[in-house]
Amino acid sequence: MKIGVFDSGFGGLTVLRALFERIPQADYLYLGDTARLPYGAKSRDTVARYAASSARFLAAEGAEFLVIACNTASALALDAIRSAVTVPVLGVVETGANAADRSSTSRDVMVIATAATVESHAYTAACAERGMRAIEKACPLLVPLVEEGWIEHPVTADVLRIYMAELMEVARGVGLNADTLVLGCTHYPLLRRQIEAAVPESLRVIDSAEVTADEVARRLRLGGQGSSAKTRFFATDSVAKFRVLGGRFLGRAIADVELVDLEAGNRQ
Amino acid sequence: MKIGVFDSGFGGLTVLRALFERIPQADYLYLGDTARLPYGAKSRDTVARYAASSARFLAAEGAEFLVIACNTASALALDAIRSAVTVPVLGVVETGANAADRSSTSRDVMVIATAATVESHAYTAACAERGMRAIEKACPLLVPLVEEGWIEHPVTADVLRIYMAELMEVARGVGLNADTLVLGCTHYPLLRRQIEAAVPESLRVIDSAEVTADEVARRLRLGGQGSSAKTRFFATDSVAKFRVLGGRFLGRAIADVELVDLEAGNRQ
Repeated sequence: MKIGVFDSGFGGLTVLRALFERIPQADYLYLGDTARLPYGAKSRDTVARYAASSARFLAAEGAEFLVIACNTASALALDAIRSAVTVPVLGVVETGANAADRSSTSRDVMVIATAATVESHAYTAACAERGMRAIEKACPLLVPLVEEGWIEHPVTADVLRIYMAELMEVARGVGLNADTLVLGCTHYPLLRRQIEAAVPESLRVIDSAEVTADEVARRLRLGGQGSSAKTRFFATDSVAKFRVLGGRFLGRAIADVELVDLEAGNRQ
Repeated sequence: MKIGVFDSGFGGLTVLRALFERIPQADYLYLGDTARLPYGAKSRDTVARYAASSARFLAAEGAEFLVIACNTASALALDAIRSAVTVPVLGVVETGANAADRSSTSRDVMVIATAATVESHAYTAACAERGMRAIEKACPLLVPLVEEGWIEHPVTADVLRIYMAELMEVARGVGLNADTLVLGCTHYPLLRRQIEAAVPESLRVIDSAEVTADEVARRLRLGGQGSSAKTRFFATDSVAKFRVLGGRFLGRAIADVELVDLEAGNRQ
């Protein structure tokens, strides 16, 4: 089984890392569309065009199953991606909503994500389909803080305290009794401990990387057995930067990264 | 005179705002390549390709003089831009270095900018050409803080205190006696007061937007007189977002923004 994992950048490597642990016997293709990141600030049409070309690339390279490990692309472009390829496609918004569905007894959940994911209200829609109410909050400083490497840092603790207080305030305002918080951005698992410290203990934090790997394993009826995976990494911009930054997200060194030009590919 | 102003996003609007004040009688074309921002995280080749296509667009729309109001593009792609068009091109790195040259008596300067601008060492090279020593520091959290609207905010004050202390530490380590600090990113003028509060009073802060407008006025022998400018705004992504966010940088409302597709244009 060859599984394609797509993200606009490095964050999706937290999903790949979880997949390595859950399904070690599969082969993986990872594409980071780093020349065009971040998707989080772009419009639906632009994200759909970029994500569809990325999905086509992974399918052409042999992926038999696609994981859209990018919340923005899952929120804005899942239909466009499914139209672009014939293989099964799973997005992190639906896996996050499925996990919230299993976790929540109050049926009220909260979601933190990038501005574009929140503006799409994809999580609210996915939660409503599963009979849950949701409120979403954009936390645009968290990705830059992670990329600055300020993980265990007082400024990050302050920012989280402010964001979480604002979120709780909104929840109180609308009478939401949430028992579950979904981390709706693949950078956020790196801040999981800090986020858990900034919210009431009663709130269960759902790590989208972990629950996505679990759901892929269930869908493919794979998991737990086998040898170590063979993985190819592709990036649309600086492979040197991908190796350095990517290693932090993956939790292990990345040896080889192949440079691809999706714009040239689309033009042919 | 029709002046084209180019940036990857909204930051260059601080330069346009300064141009409005300095040369009110000119007409302006502003292009924000918002579908492909930020340039700050991308490689030299990618930035050069994007910036050249943007410059060609502005020249084709009638610009007689181009201001590259994007530090990353000025640092990485000025030669590529000058090869792509026949009109005169002025970049904010050279105007910043020229202003430092006029300001500094110690001949030692400091520069704060995005990671890509710093990694290019374009300011160090431009300062060396003018007989000055420079040290540069990447401040990757400042752009997101400005875009979050956290201008007069304790977290921003903390981040600036940390960044400036790190910068002073490096300066002491290499025996630099700086009297001038160049704001090497067009977002930073919005934080000018906060930055001035975080550094010694003896340090003169150079606002790249102001000094660029001054230099354009000198080069074109224009300034100070005339009626209000006619301006067209172009963006490669969401025009609605451009109007809202852009107004904050420009300091006045933006009525009409035209959507352009530079990738389609290049393919024809």
